[in-house]
Amino acid sequence: MLKHANHLRVVLVGTRNPLNLGAAARAMSNFGFLHLRVVNPYEVAFREARSAVGAAPLLAAAQEYASIADAVADCTLVVGTTAVRHRELHHPLRRLEYGAQLIKRELAGGRVALLFGTEKTGLSNDDLSHCHWLLRIPTREQHISMNLGQAVAVCLYELVRDLKQARAITTEKAGKRITGSSASFTLDGLRASAAELERISTVLLEALDRSGYINPIAEATTKERVRRMVRRLNLSSKDAELWLGMLRQMLWKIRNR
Amino acid sequence: MLKHANHLRVVLVGTRNPLNLGAAARAMSNFGFLHLRVVNPYEVAFREARSAVGAAPLLAAAQEYASIADAVADCTLVVGTTAVRHRELHHPLRRLEYGAQLIKRELAGGRVALLFGTEKTGLSNDDLSHCHWLLRIPTREQHISMNLGQAVAVCLYELVRDLKQARAITTEKAGKRITGSSASFTLDGLRASAAELERISTVLLEALDRSGYINPIAEATTKERVRRMVRRLNLSSKDAELWLGMLRQMLWKIRNR
Repeated sequence: MLKHANHLRVVLVGTRNPLNLGAAARAMSNFGFLHLRVVNPYEVAFREARSAVGAAPLLAAAQEYASIADAVADCTLVVGTTAVRHRELHHPLRRLEYGAQLIKRELAGGRVALLFGTEKTGLSNDDLSHCHWLLRIPTREQHISMNLGQAVAVCLYELVRDLKQARAITTEKAGKRITGSSASFTLDGLRASAAELERISTVLLEALDRSGYINPIAEATTKERVRRMVRRLNLSSKDAELWLGMLRQMLWKIRNR
Repeated sequence: MLKHANHLRVVLVGTRNPLNLGAAARAMSNFGFLHLRVVNPYEVAFREARSAVGAAPLLAAAQEYASIADAVADCTLVVGTTAVRHRELHHPLRRLEYGAQLIKRELAGGRVALLFGTEKTGLSNDDLSHCHWLLRIPTREQHISMNLGQAVAVCLYELVRDLKQARAITTEKAGKRITGSSASFTLDGLRASAAELERISTVLLEALDRSGYINPIAEATTKERVRRMVRRLNLSSKDAELWLGMLRQMLWKIRNR
């Protein structure tokens, strides 16, 4: 089991099929990630999934949310999964093998939300605007899209896999040794939570709106862009607080003109 | 895709549920392993599975066998998957992370059969007697047994995973490549110049000043703090431009009150 497995939140967005919800929960239970959050699941799916083999306790403890913002509010890193390769993406896109390393590092100090979209369309651009970066499983070009339950299983497996331990407990060792590349990425300070970033986005967007920055025709796009931009700042919790204070003051001034 | 992927035979023994058969086929197609063999599947399962998303060609080409011996006859390595831990095993038992390395080595020169048993009981002792060794997925003790389709997906993923390649092709937005330990989360294309950052600081400070954010007594300190904060954002040149535009618009509104 992964040391900080209890810091991960698997977030299923708009899941329709009870079998997929159950399969996702089962894989979570298999790999020791016990905290499931669901955003707007089909009511029926959520109810029927409670029969998934071995995953009943996990499903019973699942938390339901009305929005992604609420579901990820207490997380310091929000990662969206996607099958997309060539569409215009506004986020860094990392392959699972590598992205999992970053997630594991973050889990040591904060909470990470791992988002999975609906079966048909995945995560929407609006959903993705809540994410810091995106993750993709290395499927082949000719058949990119995975089944939801299988995608969850593969992602969680990558988080718990441990070659060193696997070799250690195997009696017989054949072949050459693999020296795991020791990636080291530095994170500065405690990262801002998704809730803090969302507050910044909200205040900034209102200030921009009242300043005439937002063209009504492109409103949705602009909002998504601003949200992504705020996530890209990679703010520490302390800096997030400062920015929020500054933006609130500016907004107050703009409002009281 | 794995170089010798076409040397692998996924062998499903006695599968009962068409959904599992279809899910296994879909994962095979996702990861580029196209040769499925089935041993005594339930006739109905085999027929109904042909509708699995994106896996129809693979299922149509699946070969059916009456015995494991026939199904693995042309393979030089036969590996059985099992959830068993403590039962008396007569084979070496390897964890997936390590066993996959041995399988990949063998694939370069011969054919490998990877066996999955029935949903309820897995592979029997008789089935296992056809295997050279056994493979287990590192699930947690409290919930060992995986769903068949998910187990297939995880095993095949381990075969194609490639950390080196994943690191090499990870796309940072605007083509910034991540290389080794110098990776930085926030680098997003060309970095903003000091001049751009100074322009942002200036506009931000004027907006803050006019909003009453800056206490005259602590003015110098506040200005330094804000300047440092802007530098910490680690902005790309493109994002710097966007922020400057937003701040100018807000300042314009604040000025014209």
